[in-house]
Amino acid sequence: MKNLSRRSFIGDTSMAAMAGTIIFAAGNQQQKEMKNIFVHHVYFWLKNKESAEDLGKLLAGLKKLSTVTTIKQFHIGKPASTSREVIDGSYSVSWLVFFDNKADQDSYQTDPIHLKFVEECSSLWNKVVVYDSVDM
Amino acid sequence: MKNLSRRSFIGDTSMAAMAGTIIFAAGNQQQKEMKNIFVHHVYFWLKNKESAEDLGKLLAGLKKLSTVTTIKQFHIGKPASTSREVIDGSYSVSWLVFFDNKADQDSYQTDPIHLKFVEECSSLWNKVVVYDSVDM
Repeated sequence: MKNLSRRSFIGDTSMAAMAGTIIFAAGNQQQKEMKNIFVHHVYFWLKNKESAEDLGKLLAGLKKLSTVTTIKQFHIGKPASTSREVIDGSYSVSWLVFFDNKADQDSYQTDPIHLKFVEECSSLWNKVVVYDSVDM
Repeated sequence: MKNLSRRSFIGDTSMAAMAGTIIFAAGNQQQKEMKNIFVHHVYFWLKNKESAEDLGKLLAGLKKLSTVTTIKQFHIGKPASTSREVIDGSYSVSWLVFFDNKADQDSYQTDPIHLKFVEECSSLWNKVVVYDSVDM
């Protein structure tokens, strides 16, 4: 998870000065908890599940979509090889995005890059489910 | 997202030496992408949706669950106030967990702390959906 950490670190340059201190804080349970974020998790089901071309188009679209500036971090995923009754592994692509807050997510929804993604890619899927979460 | 960044930074002490360099790398799009991770996202629907007590029990359970050592980072969430046709905001609690790989997730499933969580808390929910994702 180095990219994640590096980017986050860069995101707060004041942390550079703290580096000497925080090195010794390793193992602090609280530091594993992500806070003050807006989690936007989208699952896409492709119409043509077996089409590598359609999958490629969706992935290319997500790569472009990831350039929306309010996105802090993102992950493009596929179902893992886990299998239990409660697991839904039927989707084609997972699109997990972190924003700093709801305002940034709202701005993303109307960003021209997002509108273009929907225009270019929405014909590829026949089902999409979105879960938006904020800190409890 | 400071907790996230600090913890990740700590996770790789070699990065301390790089701090001077990476400060200048801000804005690199690639560094927003999370890679080499296993994303485990669980949504719980409480039986008694309006019960603050039951919610409190589940949250307390998740706090204990978060001490499983293979967990790299986690987020405990509730539905955001977004509302569109594709958004499922009917769940009670979102439990988002990052592992380094599938082996760590598998180990988490059989960790005594996880088994105890299921024993103590599974009566609280009437629906649970899990999405496991790995890098595309």
